[in-house]
Amino acid sequence: MRHLIDPTDLSVAEIGQIIALAEDIIANRAKYSEVCKGKKLATLFYEPSTRTRLSFTSAMLELGGSVIGFSDAASSSVSKGETVADTVRVIRCFADIIAMRHFKEGAPLVGSQYAGIPVINAGDGSHSHPTQTLTDLLTIKREKGRLDHLTIGFCGDLKFGRTVHSLIKAMSRYEGIRVVLIAPDELRLPEYMLHEIETQTEGVEFREVSTMEEVMPELDILYMTRVQKERFLDEEEFNRVKDSFVLDPSKLRTAKPDMIVLHPLPRVNEITRAVDNDPRVAYFRQVENGKFVRMALIYTLLKWAEGEKLAAVPDLAEGMFIDRSMKCPNSRCISATEDVDPLFVKAGDTCRCAYCEAKIR
Amino acid sequence: MRHLIDPTDLSVAEIGQIIALAEDIIANRAKYSEVCKGKKLATLFYEPSTRTRLSFTSAMLELGGSVIGFSDAASSSVSKGETVADTVRVIRCFADIIAMRHFKEGAPLVGSQYAGIPVINAGDGSHSHPTQTLTDLLTIKREKGRLDHLTIGFCGDLKFGRTVHSLIKAMSRYEGIRVVLIAPDELRLPEYMLHEIETQTEGVEFREVSTMEEVMPELDILYMTRVQKERFLDEEEFNRVKDSFVLDPSKLRTAKPDMIVLHPLPRVNEITRAVDNDPRVAYFRQVENGKFVRMALIYTLLKWAEGEKLAAVPDLAEGMFIDRSMKCPNSRCISATEDVDPLFVKAGDTCRCAYCEAKIR
Amino acid sequence: MRHLIDPTDLSVAEIGQIIALAEDIIANRAKYSEVCKGKKLATLFYEPSTRTRLSFTSAMLELGGSVIGFSDAASSSVSKGETVADTVRVIRCFADIIAMRHFKEGAPLVGSQYAGIPVINAGDGSHSHPTQTLTDLLTIKREKGRLDHLTIGFCGDLKFGRTVHSLIKAMSRYEGIRVVLIAPDELRLPEYMLHEIETQTEGVEFREVSTMEEVMPELDILYMTRVQKERFLDEEEFNRVKDSFVLDPSKLRTAKPDMIVLHPLPRVNEITRAVDNDPRVAYFRQVENGKFVRMALIYTLLKWAEGEKLAAVPDLAEGMFIDRSMKCPNSRCISATEDVDPLFVKAGDTCRCAYCEAKIR
Repeated sequence: MRHLIDPTDLSVAEIGQIIALAEDIIANRAKYSEVCKGKKLATLFYEPSTRTRLSFTSAMLELGGSVIGFSDAASSSVSKGETVADTVRVIRCFADIIAMRHFKEGAPLVGSQYAGIPVINAGDGSHSHPTQTLTDLLTIKREKGRLDHLTIGFCGDLKFGRTVHSLIKAMSRYEGIRVVLIAPDELRLPEYMLHEIETQTEGVEFREVSTMEEVMPELDILYMTRVQKERFLDEEEFNRVKDSFVLDPSKLRTAKPDMIVLHPLPRVNEITRAVDNDPRVAYFRQVENGKFVRMALIYTLLKWAEGEKLAAVPDLAEGMFIDRSMKCPNSRCISATEDVDPLFVKAGDTCRCAYCEAKIR
Repeated sequence: MRHLIDPTDLSVAEIGQIIALAEDIIANRAKYSEVCKGKKLATLFYEPSTRTRLSFTSAMLELGGSVIGFSDAASSSVSKGETVADTVRVIRCFADIIAMRHFKEGAPLVGSQYAGIPVINAGDGSHSHPTQTLTDLLTIKREKGRLDHLTIGFCGDLKFGRTVHSLIKAMSRYEGIRVVLIAPDELRLPEYMLHEIETQTEGVEFREVSTMEEVMPELDILYMTRVQKERFLDEEEFNRVKDSFVLDPSKLRTAKPDMIVLHPLPRVNEITRAVDNDPRVAYFRQVENGKFVRMALIYTLLKWAEGEKLAAVPDLAEGMFIDRSMKCPNSRCISATEDVDPLFVKAGDTCRCAYCEAKIR
Repeated sequence: MRHLIDPTDLSVAEIGQIIALAEDIIANRAKYSEVCKGKKLATLFYEPSTRTRLSFTSAMLELGGSVIGFSDAASSSVSKGETVADTVRVIRCFADIIAMRHFKEGAPLVGSQYAGIPVINAGDGSHSHPTQTLTDLLTIKREKGRLDHLTIGFCGDLKFGRTVHSLIKAMSRYEGIRVVLIAPDELRLPEYMLHEIETQTEGVEFREVSTMEEVMPELDILYMTRVQKERFLDEEEFNRVKDSFVLDPSKLRTAKPDMIVLHPLPRVNEITRAVDNDPRVAYFRQVENGKFVRMALIYTLLKWAEGEKLAAVPDLAEGMFIDRSMKCPNSRCISATEDVDPLFVKAGDTCRCAYCEAKIR
């Protein structure tokens, strides 16, 4: 049974296949309008996210399927103490595929072990959000015509921004990628990520700068992110940095005419309204691409699942192992609150929690 | 791109057309059961309203379309600080038409400027609720056979009751209308509304009385409204007036045999349960008319939108203008909290905010 | 108009008919995939219950129908003071059948008096939950091949557990049933229930024990229930008993090889995870049966309703009477908060409230 828990669950070839399918869906809408007739998507949203939930919902409806689910934990059985494992074993009786958003890191991975139907991670805490990454890739492909030989500037919250981490990893798999990191000191890309990408990928060129202006002319893509209040422990620190790194028309003046501006949305004021009518702004088109790539993903996972027997026991992905003597140290990890198998991944000299990727000492 | 933000957005002829379509839908249900197949309605409810939301939902389903959306602000991206303008630019990627309910006055108007798809105002604060007005008109048409030459008594909360204000305005456009206002001192129709209607319409006859009994025998329609706790700043004042102006069987005794009783619902105790079985009671039939008129409206707006290109820039309705030196004084107006264009309407000597209709000095 | 408010609303023959239909649906899915096309189910959930709501939702979708509704009282008009009677009179304009969950006992019965369309009780407080009982019956039928000559152990919260009360009553209607009650002193089956069943049924054998172990070898069915925090006034008492009566693999060792373990779910820790892979565990299959039996029920009630004229006045079931001089003493009863008819049932020497079954002195 194939799931999408982490962007790297898909090979470069499979991502190419999904992007190509999305482009075919865009070109031939009617052809796909009934392909999921009789199928049901369950949107299990343990924390609210209108955009992502409605994107999945409209994607499934445009494939001719239907949607059931909940939009926040308060109206679910969570409040009665049910585990994610039990919830998905129940939901598998009602639906054919699951999109799960959860505030705990690793919850969708736990779900995928027990669901017996495909599980899509629709965002788990600040850990991973792979359909956003697919959305970004489809947008870059459609806007720039290619996924390689591009210079991408990431601006804003590079510390907590999971969409940034995921996209950097995903782009690192293509040739000729140059990455420019534009962030205040407090929101720099974490050291471990820098190290990980530098040791695991070749050919990717990294640079850190502290203003947009100094790199604007060389960028093919400017990826803006929101400085999220939720991520700050200290409101004062938030107030000090929130207005730095705001994109306005004057800063755009030196950009290439065919540069594109991306943003995972919602934006607050890191991009001024005056920028919205600039043709280089691609973030509203990005939203529509999100729907199309989710159509391609749902359809692909359902096709892959067809004919596969429901697994009686949880599958372990390659490289994963269970060790009951070890414990993940991350309090935001699903393993901290639910009785899940202590599951780890060995990668070179290090060992990480399989749910949240926290390093184990 | 046509929207329905205010009841007066539709001409008398267009309202007649929608009512006629609703009557045809009632007579030929099967004919319309698939006309919106493949279309999606987004119900964006920033404050809960079960009746209105389910009325829109069932309307769209009975046209063969489907529905996505949210039912309160807590489960939407509002909590992340997204503007209405950005939300509708996202939703236009997922749906074909929007029904928006918002606690801020003018929010649906802002939405209509950015949506690129038809927007229906499903209630904005205490400002406007045009589909309730269409519901009332269809009910009067079906129950009385006509929209002119009628005596209508409005009873209860005439100060805050937006459905009353809208229906008075809408009925004023027909010939031979006599309006009787029945309200306690604290809840009288606001002076400015009285003045506005008196100066802008001809032939409408107004009268204010303080009891139902004194006018009951002459009424063709008795429109009851709820005295809403939410609208009172002072709970003591609420308790003092809430039980006045209650309709019970004894008060109905002097009414015409073919008078009808309307109510926008929910009612609390302004109409006693004993009245419910009186054949003159039309408020439960009114609910079903609400569904039919929304079917007619959704179908009409989608047909009008067909073929129109999505507007790249916001449309300004006739008579509206932007003036950055002016500011709306109403704190409940959407312009007080979101960075929207300062949009105004000139009408005679006065100038009003285009979002909430507050008078500008 | 037929409803399902209490499990005993259906005769043994009718339950047999619904179970047989469910088994036919399981065997011939495609045959039923469009039988409710154009029909709408309203899920009115005044308190959240993901599992039950999604079970009804998926059931209706798999019959080809569609679903509208709300998932908690906060996003409904309840907060505006609307009565259940008025709400269902509104909803009947939007839907063809209602599934109602309410925190007040008797609310679905009130609903059924005014709806004019079939009403299914999806759980009213701790009073009744008839579709869970149908689910249990279908599961027993499918797992054991019969509904008679069975020994059933009920373990856990037998005091507040409405699913236990309902299933005992329902099983008492079949021949050769032996019931074993396994509970701590604080959570014993209420005296009145014991008395009621003993006097009203013949041939049912009852026994109370205090440990699972002593009866395990003779059980055909072990019905586990959750010790719910919500039901306790005193958290300390909850903590003391919650870990008693936990099922683990060692306790299962003496059970018959074809015994089955049922649980209405969600479970917390009354069944350890290690038990889940035992083939005798039927609680996840039970969930799927819940969907199938709801499909059979919805289809049956809609067929029964077809052709029946909407009742102009509320129906009174046989044996019910209105007496305005009497009052139900139960504060959790819907009659305590809403202005409903004071409705009672005479049964032998006693008189009970028709809404919550509380005894009247």
